[in-house]
Amino acid sequence: MTQKQSVTAALLVIGDEILSGRTKDQNIGFTAEFLTKIGIDLAEVRVVPDIQKEIVAALNALRVRYDYVFTTGGIGPTHDDITADAVAAALGLELIEDPRAIALLLEIIKPENLNEARRRMARIPRGADLIENPISKAPGFWIQNVIVMAGVPSIMQAMLNAVAPKLSTGAPMIAETIVAGNVPEGTYAADLARLASDHSQLSIGSYPHVVDGKFHNQIVVRGKDAELVGQVVEKVRAMITRLSAG
Amino acid sequence: MTQKQSVTAALLVIGDEILSGRTKDQNIGFTAEFLTKIGIDLAEVRVVPDIQKEIVAALNALRVRYDYVFTTGGIGPTHDDITADAVAAALGLELIEDPRAIALLLEIIKPENLNEARRRMARIPRGADLIENPISKAPGFWIQNVIVMAGVPSIMQAMLNAVAPKLSTGAPMIAETIVAGNVPEGTYAADLARLASDHSQLSIGSYPHVVDGKFHNQIVVRGKDAELVGQVVEKVRAMITRLSAG
Repeated sequence: MTQKQSVTAALLVIGDEILSGRTKDQNIGFTAEFLTKIGIDLAEVRVVPDIQKEIVAALNALRVRYDYVFTTGGIGPTHDDITADAVAAALGLELIEDPRAIALLLEIIKPENLNEARRRMARIPRGADLIENPISKAPGFWIQNVIVMAGVPSIMQAMLNAVAPKLSTGAPMIAETIVAGNVPEGTYAADLARLASDHSQLSIGSYPHVVDGKFHNQIVVRGKDAELVGQVVEKVRAMITRLSAG
Repeated sequence: MTQKQSVTAALLVIGDEILSGRTKDQNIGFTAEFLTKIGIDLAEVRVVPDIQKEIVAALNALRVRYDYVFTTGGIGPTHDDITADAVAAALGLELIEDPRAIALLLEIIKPENLNEARRRMARIPRGADLIENPISKAPGFWIQNVIVMAGVPSIMQAMLNAVAPKLSTGAPMIAETIVAGNVPEGTYAADLARLASDHSQLSIGSYPHVVDGKFHNQIVVRGKDAELVGQVVEKVRAMITRLSAG
């Protein structure tokens, strides 16, 4: 199998609690870093509420555009957990009570406690593969290019680990950071723009952060050609050294 | 002026560094909580890369749909800071070097150091209002229903504070949390679904988190009618008390 140069993904975060600010999302940052490391480029993220037509619209926009769409949230037993319904609706598939998922739930739930609400967690679009949940058993699922995961970070991370070996990946993005420290962005911006323009196959960014009211800047050179990244990093370093001395 | 029942907003986070996982976004959670508190409903979030056509497409999708679109990131002096260009392109407006913004920059930059890169930070779509940046002077701007802010959290937060008094707001969303603790979601899901179905003007959610492998659940009742929220909260409390005892 030939490796694609670039494999892309979107992340769809589902949940009123993120949009209200009640829950501070941790899944975007984790997924971004995880996918980057294994050679999948996260190209877009959306956060939508627990409203089926919003989830369906976002999913349909994203799944035709990227190699994978990962979703987080909305696969528990309560009425506001509607991700499986929305995914089935978006893909035009039947939602069935999956016997494999029921079997998983029965590993931690006594049969007499497997009520209708808990059975909701076994509702999976027909034809999906299940994704293991080592923490609370209720599985995620993978159907076509859509990978449906829990919203609870520890469970989401376990599910991402479980699917990772089966994902197609591209050449990993190499990113090197050069500390510019207190050299002001405005001092190096012109030189950096020229470097970026001379190397359009790389992504070169300048990232300020503020500590105690003072800027600390970092420059990041990203690309899939390690040798080229290394060459440009050396040029950026030389530029910063020159400006620090000047 | 009559207060609208509901004022909506979207947040557009602009930046490769968020999608690569290098920078962990702090602006989504902060903005969500801030807007909710002042009576603006954050209805959608998107994260897009530093690519003009992606920013333009997202902005045009969001600005026709919501009362406000807030953006973060991409307004610095370096070549990868293209938010002003993208906003001007999306709105079909000319991007000008704004003398008010130049004057602000000259408060902290010596005239001989105001090079072309730094002047980029004064490029503002014609007709925009500037948004004060108390930390590093380079302003954000507000044009039509689009509010453009810095990506650095401390600056973004200062800008949000600066625009807040001028925003139209709706009735604030009241949210009450009921601790369900270790009462399993599957135990109360059916009762909670009935409550939610009986009070469709409220948003009722159940939010598990996992600590040391154990679930701790919270139920949140949200709505704009304080009395109704209070009534339903009492019903949820009674339900949890009954199930804890049972």
